[in-house]
Amino acid sequence: MITQIDHLGIAVKNIETAVEYYEKGLGLECEHIEVVESQKVRTAFFKVGDVHLELLEPTSPESPIAKFLEKNGEGIHHVAFATDGIQKQLADASAAGIRLIHDKPFPGAGDKLVAFLHPKSTHGVLTEFCAPADSPAATVAED
Amino acid sequence: MITQIDHLGIAVKNIETAVEYYEKGLGLECEHIEVVESQKVRTAFFKVGDVHLELLEPTSPESPIAKFLEKNGEGIHHVAFATDGIQKQLADASAAGIRLIHDKPFPGAGDKLVAFLHPKSTHGVLTEFCAPADSPAATVAED
Repeated sequence: MITQIDHLGIAVKNIETAVEYYEKGLGLECEHIEVVESQKVRTAFFKVGDVHLELLEPTSPESPIAKFLEKNGEGIHHVAFATDGIQKQLADASAAGIRLIHDKPFPGAGDKLVAFLHPKSTHGVLTEFCAPADSPAATVAED
Repeated sequence: MITQIDHLGIAVKNIETAVEYYEKGLGLECEHIEVVESQKVRTAFFKVGDVHLELLEPTSPESPIAKFLEKNGEGIHHVAFATDGIQKQLADASAAGIRLIHDKPFPGAGDKLVAFLHPKSTHGVLTEFCAPADSPAATVAED
């Protein structure tokens, strides 16, 4: 079951100028900035209520975020929903006819298991499911 | 001060098929559907944690959502941040060099006061501030 929005991923060209906007323009506080090598991005985290904003700057032209920026410019890249059972969430979505990019979750940033739905199935919103990697309900099914 | 994300506005071509995706594909429950005449949209509301998803289907080719769909296709249209003082939030943003679409809040859907920042200033994310219309801090300044 989806319990909340975990984060919004936001593609930006330059993380310093984007952080400055979120800090000075909106009054939010950047928690930290880190490089996520596997995704070829530098990420700045802001907490707004229970939701994180994750600014994503590509560190390589091969980064998915670089390709997104080239096609769309800056803007919201994806929405991540927290679920209390990621494997069941994926199975239920698949049973409802939703195409999955990943039919099994894999380790993502922040010690979480993550999986993405296929954007052709989600009315234009790139959609991620995520769950803490150590939650029993988040473990990958063994079948 | 921004307290949470109030809602995500999501542009869709057909609200019935989009509601079906959010209900059957994600397991969320549609709270209600209403027409907002002033914005020329039909809106479906879903609650996810503390955040609402608002699906927006244009009811006229002159709707801002119709223009968005024509240019971008379906996807996230705007992010609305709840603030405990909308007039001060706007003044602070303006003082930080952010361009405003509205320098004073106006009545929006759901008995709220709302105002938008200019997208040229917000790194590609159409950004709304909102506050309950009856909150003391949300009242429009008299100057």
